[in-house]
Amino acid sequence: MKDYELTLQVMLDRAVSQFGHKEIVSEEEDGTTHRYTYNEAADRMAQLANALDELGLEMGSRASVMAINHHRHYELYFGLSCSGRSIHMTNHMLPDEHIVEIVNEAEDEVVFVDPAFVETVENVADQFETVEHYVVLDDEVPETDLEPIQSYEELLDGHETDYEWPEIDEEREAGICYTSGTTGLPKGVAYTHRNIYLHTLTHSHIDVFKISENDAVMPVVPMYHVNGWGLPYTATLCGSKLVLPGPKTDSEQIAELIDREGVTITAAVPTVWREMASFYDEREDIELESLDRVLTGGSSPPEWLMEKFDKEIGAPIYQGYGMTEAAPNLVNTMTTTEVKEELDESGQYQQQMKPGLPAPGVQIRLRDQNGEEVPHDGESSGEIQARAPWLIDEYYNRPEATAESFTDDGWFKSGDVGTIDEYGYIEVVDRLDDIIKSGGEWISSIELENELMAHDAVEEATVISVEHEKWDERPVAYVVASADDVSGDELRAHLRERYPKWWMPDKIVFVEEIPKTTTGKFNKKVLREDFDEEYDGLPLEE
Amino acid sequence: MKDYELTLQVMLDRAVSQFGHKEIVSEEEDGTTHRYTYNEAADRMAQLANALDELGLEMGSRASVMAINHHRHYELYFGLSCSGRSIHMTNHMLPDEHIVEIVNEAEDEVVFVDPAFVETVENVADQFETVEHYVVLDDEVPETDLEPIQSYEELLDGHETDYEWPEIDEEREAGICYTSGTTGLPKGVAYTHRNIYLHTLTHSHIDVFKISENDAVMPVVPMYHVNGWGLPYTATLCGSKLVLPGPKTDSEQIAELIDREGVTITAAVPTVWREMASFYDEREDIELESLDRVLTGGSSPPEWLMEKFDKEIGAPIYQGYGMTEAAPNLVNTMTTTEVKEELDESGQYQQQMKPGLPAPGVQIRLRDQNGEEVPHDGESSGEIQARAPWLIDEYYNRPEATAESFTDDGWFKSGDVGTIDEYGYIEVVDRLDDIIKSGGEWISSIELENELMAHDAVEEATVISVEHEKWDERPVAYVVASADDVSGDELRAHLRERYPKWWMPDKIVFVEEIPKTTTGKFNKKVLREDFDEEYDGLPLEE
Repeated sequence: MKDYELTLQVMLDRAVSQFGHKEIVSEEEDGTTHRYTYNEAADRMAQLANALDELGLEMGSRASVMAINHHRHYELYFGLSCSGRSIHMTNHMLPDEHIVEIVNEAEDEVVFVDPAFVETVENVADQFETVEHYVVLDDEVPETDLEPIQSYEELLDGHETDYEWPEIDEEREAGICYTSGTTGLPKGVAYTHRNIYLHTLTHSHIDVFKISENDAVMPVVPMYHVNGWGLPYTATLCGSKLVLPGPKTDSEQIAELIDREGVTITAAVPTVWREMASFYDEREDIELESLDRVLTGGSSPPEWLMEKFDKEIGAPIYQGYGMTEAAPNLVNTMTTTEVKEELDESGQYQQQMKPGLPAPGVQIRLRDQNGEEVPHDGESSGEIQARAPWLIDEYYNRPEATAESFTDDGWFKSGDVGTIDEYGYIEVVDRLDDIIKSGGEWISSIELENELMAHDAVEEATVISVEHEKWDERPVAYVVASADDVSGDELRAHLRERYPKWWMPDKIVFVEEIPKTTTGKFNKKVLREDFDEEYDGLPLEE
Repeated sequence: MKDYELTLQVMLDRAVSQFGHKEIVSEEEDGTTHRYTYNEAADRMAQLANALDELGLEMGSRASVMAINHHRHYELYFGLSCSGRSIHMTNHMLPDEHIVEIVNEAEDEVVFVDPAFVETVENVADQFETVEHYVVLDDEVPETDLEPIQSYEELLDGHETDYEWPEIDEEREAGICYTSGTTGLPKGVAYTHRNIYLHTLTHSHIDVFKISENDAVMPVVPMYHVNGWGLPYTATLCGSKLVLPGPKTDSEQIAELIDREGVTITAAVPTVWREMASFYDEREDIELESLDRVLTGGSSPPEWLMEKFDKEIGAPIYQGYGMTEAAPNLVNTMTTTEVKEELDESGQYQQQMKPGLPAPGVQIRLRDQNGEEVPHDGESSGEIQARAPWLIDEYYNRPEATAESFTDDGWFKSGDVGTIDEYGYIEVVDRLDDIIKSGGEWISSIELENELMAHDAVEEATVISVEHEKWDERPVAYVVASADDVSGDELRAHLRERYPKWWMPDKIVFVEEIPKTTTGKFNKKVLREDFDEEYDGLPLEE
């Protein structure tokens, strides 16, 4: 009989009863550093819960939080969820209409907002249908039209530091994130307490992130972006020192924080680490001595970067694979026995550039266009489909999107195309939407893009799929050249060194710039529309 | 919505799909070594499941397994549970009447038994009420009266190596163990799939056992003794190499196995490690090079032993704390930050001798006789009470024992007395009961007393626990004889009619009277002090 619910309360209880004196460091907007303990944080979470009771926020209601990584945001993570409410981690960088849409769909009753984003909220507040309170995450309220409004410190002030946390079923929603696709409005991904608890446990698995109470954990990845990859939860359950970088997100500031706070593990997209590498060479006072390992995701770090971090800095980079729907981590491996025994150094780095093996509890399979199994030979590719105890099984309020995204037997269709090699390592080679299906075979747009961008004369490149009468689809490249005199033939010759003839783009279009999405990705949808307009009926030969 | 059940099927699936080629090594009774892979083991588990279908064993039915640690036992762990049956891990060393009682209470339909224990089963089989089949864990059936009987290999022979594992709810029972207390018959502890899954996950936590796929795991602790401390499950989920020592359980054999198989982590009661330490000094060819860490439990290893293993062998010993009801692990810590920073070497060993911090998800509190909280000062002691997602909340079929063992607010009353120090480290200082812990097994003092007093020539008798170099504790009886001519040997012969040889008191002291407490109970504390004074240094043989 299940009598013990897997909830965020258990995590918080562990932090308080075992590691109450451990430190949470938070960089503030005004340049100061805020320091306190898990015990003190928990006291304020209790104050917050009491204040929310007074505001009349019922169990099950949601609050939007638009904030960077700081201690008040951390308090909201637990104060809201542990009192039976749900935290809607809202990306303030979304287009206004998306913010309106998701706050209304989530029926958020309170909006907690950083002073820096008050203006963003002011622009859309008149369209909010359910919001009844605004709280500015600061000591004071800036000049604003928003109302009723108070500061976070005013909200907490005078409330008891004790709170009788309610009994919570592990199936209760703890938080909700919205994921932006290339088309349509963001889709809601609601995590239960159980989802987050089980996701968090894997982070301490020695073959996954091996996060320990001996670590000092710094999530650079935003806490509004898929739970800061879950790291604020992990630090709490493990009793790790937690370092929240606030507005400090460039590599120089991150490096200084690592050295000052003895950070052992941190996480951000590869760009940050690429910048850090050159910065590390320039500044002699930066040591990164404490840094033990680095998590990244979204794209593969290049081999030279892996080697630099491993050998010079002494902190190997590990790439994870996941998605908002999976809270987010599914695949991450600290290098395994056979890889170490059987491969030379370069081979090991090549393996380490792949996300690796599924975490315990995660099941991954590859399926081709006909739903058939794809061999695990490191070459054959198929859609990555997944199951995990923390993977959602529906989009909030979106039965159609749900039906499209799950197979009949309950596997999540990631939309990513991948391979699995002889070591069981998973590699993501493309998005299903972006892969080029030519004559029944698949061509990876990402591989072509990376190889084009590896050419000296190319600044940026993207490859899209266009319709073709005979082959169904064919690749077309859009290139921003850094040198005037590079030709399509020259680039094709470059690609031919690694890829077969039938992978060669039918057309290479030189452009001034490539359109991007709000999250900075190449906007292939716009390019496809452009291409159809511009080159309609073109026999795809130059 | 929960759509993903936490079951042993998930563990097995991970071993097969990620680590199918990794090795399981099993030492056999005949001195040979059996080697195969997780893939091959899974094929045989499927054969087993098919064979059990043919035998007519329904979902939910139980089978008793009386076996040491070998590959067939391992196959039964998963083959039974993953097909929806339950494995009753039966301790063949229990007194006959207990074996009868628990096999009948569990309604076991099949008994799987090692050739070595066939005689034990023969002695009691006529009292089994539900057993319909016997299976000998070997190639052939020895001469026996048991029927119907076949060998395990005959059972599997000819069956398909594919099996459609049924959908299993995580709340379904996966296995049952019986725990012997001081009074009455053993009590059933039934584990759900969820219990075992969540227990297993913590073993890979970097602050707990940090078991990795890079490990070679050897459970010396018997697989009939609380799931072999869960290690066969852990190795499977992690994809570790698994080494099953079979009949090889003395320190020389264990040392040879460690060296031969590159074992990195192993687990057994402290006695084993004490012997290993002197053995290591004697035999120059023993290296223990691969050994990285050692798990123990039941009692604290002495500081010299901790130091020897840490410094000379390079494999620190960690003591865990748990109990059958908790599958068994609750508390185990690889030394933590503050301990390392603040204490000198000896202080660190002193800390390491304690079980340490509760594993993630485990909640521990100390309560005094009045149910009041006890300070965490390392001195004040109280009953250790616990909650954990894998702790049972009832004894099978025993509402009274259940009511006695759980508080009204759902905490398990361990019966152990402990302290919690400033680092949050838990130490067990005593038992509420006076159980005798001999070589990792329990001997009930009360049962021996009752049996002694059942002898005509005995007026009064009590049994205390005394320290023993090899077995940690041994029973010593104090007897008031009613007839002059009764001898210790005579009384031992009487006890041997019901209890195994290793239960026999090492010494039987004849006295005029037995000191009593004010409430008329035997004053064991006074007797222990008397014994220490009188017989100090006595080699415990008459």
